[in-house]
Amino acid sequence: MRGELDAELVLSQSLPGGRATLEGVLPGLAEEALARSLGKGVVGRMGPWNLEGDRLTLTLTAENGRAHQALLALTRRLKVELGRTAKVGVRTVRALRYRLTFDVPKAPTAPVSLPIPHQLRFGDGQATLELEGLDEEALRDNWSDRAVTLVEDKVLRQHYQGKEQYWKLLSQSPARNLTVTEDPTEAMLRRNWLRNGPTKGKWFLGPLPAHLLRTMERIAIDEVLRPLGFEEVVQPHHDSFDILLKTGHLEGVPGEFYYVAEPKSRDPAVWERFTDLVKITRKVPEAELANLVSGPVAVSCYAQCPTTYWWLSGRTIAQEMLPLKVFDRAAISNRYESGGRHGLERVDEFHRIEPVYLGTPEQLLELREQLLARYAHVFNDILELEWRTAWVTPFYMQQSGAIGVEDETQRIKGTIDFEAYLPYRGTREASEWLEFQNLSIVGDKYPKAFTIKTQKGELWSGCTGIGLERWLIAFLAQRGLDPTAWPAGFRKYAGELPREIRFL
Amino acid sequence: MRGELDAELVLSQSLPGGRATLEGVLPGLAEEALARSLGKGVVGRMGPWNLEGDRLTLTLTAENGRAHQALLALTRRLKVELGRTAKVGVRTVRALRYRLTFDVPKAPTAPVSLPIPHQLRFGDGQATLELEGLDEEALRDNWSDRAVTLVEDKVLRQHYQGKEQYWKLLSQSPARNLTVTEDPTEAMLRRNWLRNGPTKGKWFLGPLPAHLLRTMERIAIDEVLRPLGFEEVVQPHHDSFDILLKTGHLEGVPGEFYYVAEPKSRDPAVWERFTDLVKITRKVPEAELANLVSGPVAVSCYAQCPTTYWWLSGRTIAQEMLPLKVFDRAAISNRYESGGRHGLERVDEFHRIEPVYLGTPEQLLELREQLLARYAHVFNDILELEWRTAWVTPFYMQQSGAIGVEDETQRIKGTIDFEAYLPYRGTREASEWLEFQNLSIVGDKYPKAFTIKTQKGELWSGCTGIGLERWLIAFLAQRGLDPTAWPAGFRKYAGELPREIRFL
Repeated sequence: MRGELDAELVLSQSLPGGRATLEGVLPGLAEEALARSLGKGVVGRMGPWNLEGDRLTLTLTAENGRAHQALLALTRRLKVELGRTAKVGVRTVRALRYRLTFDVPKAPTAPVSLPIPHQLRFGDGQATLELEGLDEEALRDNWSDRAVTLVEDKVLRQHYQGKEQYWKLLSQSPARNLTVTEDPTEAMLRRNWLRNGPTKGKWFLGPLPAHLLRTMERIAIDEVLRPLGFEEVVQPHHDSFDILLKTGHLEGVPGEFYYVAEPKSRDPAVWERFTDLVKITRKVPEAELANLVSGPVAVSCYAQCPTTYWWLSGRTIAQEMLPLKVFDRAAISNRYESGGRHGLERVDEFHRIEPVYLGTPEQLLELREQLLARYAHVFNDILELEWRTAWVTPFYMQQSGAIGVEDETQRIKGTIDFEAYLPYRGTREASEWLEFQNLSIVGDKYPKAFTIKTQKGELWSGCTGIGLERWLIAFLAQRGLDPTAWPAGFRKYAGELPREIRFL
Repeated sequence: MRGELDAELVLSQSLPGGRATLEGVLPGLAEEALARSLGKGVVGRMGPWNLEGDRLTLTLTAENGRAHQALLALTRRLKVELGRTAKVGVRTVRALRYRLTFDVPKAPTAPVSLPIPHQLRFGDGQATLELEGLDEEALRDNWSDRAVTLVEDKVLRQHYQGKEQYWKLLSQSPARNLTVTEDPTEAMLRRNWLRNGPTKGKWFLGPLPAHLLRTMERIAIDEVLRPLGFEEVVQPHHDSFDILLKTGHLEGVPGEFYYVAEPKSRDPAVWERFTDLVKITRKVPEAELANLVSGPVAVSCYAQCPTTYWWLSGRTIAQEMLPLKVFDRAAISNRYESGGRHGLERVDEFHRIEPVYLGTPEQLLELREQLLARYAHVFNDILELEWRTAWVTPFYMQQSGAIGVEDETQRIKGTIDFEAYLPYRGTREASEWLEFQNLSIVGDKYPKAFTIKTQKGELWSGCTGIGLERWLIAFLAQRGLDPTAWPAGFRKYAGELPREIRFL
């Protein structure tokens, strides 16, 4: 990457002596700043410069993307120098234009947009991005780096658009003799076990499915989590924007959140007109309400692990506590699913146990084997499911080469999906199986993002979300609603079932 | 109450024959409509009327508040009559002015506002409310009735403002020898058991308090709910506006909700500018976000019972299922507490088991005694608390005379609060005890609001919210954080405690 930066510094007043005052010092200061900022062996230089009144303009070029850092370093030095010799300060510094030229392995197939002022050209395996008008904060905050990454990422995505997610079979249970072919949600609705909730994609579970959901929860805790030493935590249900900025969720899935807004005031007098309108009209005065409530300030839990990492943020965990193993089942997961809802398995609200673990890479590899063994025990011996596991990797991880997908046995980081066959969807071969569970080792991404440390060595993390509705649907789709047809191991856990509520 | 209504009907065209066409029929139709609408023995009459082109104006008076119903009935009759005889329709009907005069037991002490066009005068123990410009929907929807109730209620509230809630001691445990005086939240914070959450008034409970909270949950379920035959349900966490309109919460506590808003679209292309800005600036582009998200469409659960009633709405419960006893512990309670937060006991998010019961008044009375006995067992024998119960009644229930507060033994409907002494707040006598539990029989309010029926007889309902954080704080404030000082009954339930996490 090559960078060329046209900068403008506005001084606190016209410089006494004008250009002559700077001629002796500016080149030296620039050289120093460039040497410090660009790193060893990277060539950079200051081009033509000019002073008119209180405005100093100059050009910096660099063989890498650090010219803006050199500009900030030069500004600091100039402040000291001019303050000392001429009692003149530097009021503002900004990049009028910042041209960055970098390789792009593939040519774009469609226009690439950016939300800040810029020009962008592609040719000869390269892109030239010219950013316009970056102020000091934008320079300090490395917007230029992120803009380049964004361009690279957008071009890459254009090429992968519509391509299948990487999927490679890892294990497969024996086929089972399954006789049920009914959609379990339909069957439960017919019996009044369920009611489609008062808001989109959410269900009210009557006593029978509630009992079965809690049975799945007990199996997960007693057969998987307790034997492996996981401890429960109770985390808040609202996720802050700060957390979601750190994990990348805010840029990744902003269209899938349920947002949270607060009353601007709690004073009943402020709400009087609203409440009076409700009392008289028995309707929601929407315009009135919109004025009394804030914009979005947080989101309803999307996944629990981000807030678990937040809990440990800024802390150093004693070595003896590793691997740290905790789980949350208090926060409810909300996802705005829009059109894709189906039954209890694809919903806007679900109940998930989210186990999170932190430790050395070796500890997490060992834990993964233990978890896989406990899950296999549950799915084979208690639920007696037909299921399989597969390595799955988002395209950008394949592309980045971070994972050696050629040699599966060497895999450390990555995600394993657990999938169950749903007979109501069709044949084993042609139908889509249900992802009802996953298991990930993520590496040091989250400990780094949340500044979680230990006494020595690398700290990695991972999680293995247990979707209780999905466990339930996988089981009922294969085994049906008749308890006498359920495996003995599950019947024992379920115990006595609640009676069905009789409505007339 | 006396009503006088100046109405205007706009016909589909000028009436052929003008006033003469109406003279023979209008008085008779009005008489008929008044007789039908006002009820037996209530005097009403039509005053002067006029027809100009397509506009018919008339005045109806009634000894009660049903003149608007008479107007609608008259309009229906007129439509039939004019359609048949002159092929003329009635395009619109509205009240230009609707004067309602009614008794007010007390004079207002401050101005009384209404959110719809009106004039309001008080004098001689009466109020005259003149509503202006009510359209057909407002007439049909009985806005006038609700406006009168609102005026009465506002005057009443002016007189009760600042008065204490009714409170009458019902039972009291023996004083206990309590040596702990520390605020348990402070003590837990010092040990890193808790972390103040990423959004306002919400806590992250580490393994130790999470274990204790779940212990309280198990005690409540195993010692109170299971022995009395309560079955668990799992309800959605978002409450719809429709539900809150029915229960009255939307007019009662709109400033205490956390509101839920949805993405306007789930399409990543719609969000591209937003996500690009996040990627480059690492900040939330708030203006951009506000445009991409809907206004408030629902609220985060405030209390669970409304949605439980919704679950049964429109249904007829078989007699043999009564009393129907269910509880939810899935939905998390969110309340915007604004300034009043303190520790784990006064928070914006808490975990509550909400048992709800429906049955005949006799069944609910019996159940209340059973619940009181089970609670007493838990608080006396397992948690060994110093606690008391009291009848509490909101002022408007006292005023309405619905409850015979003079004869406590005869009480059926109403709420019992359970309060625990918190030593850290001061002496038993001077300090405010913590409400950590309540128990209500509400009567037929909710079955009526949600059209829940049974085969025969009255159907009543009630609920008894169990606040787990409050049970925990009541216990820890009296017993402290040292497990060796805990009562044997609780220690047995708690079992082996998780180890404290050591941070450096």
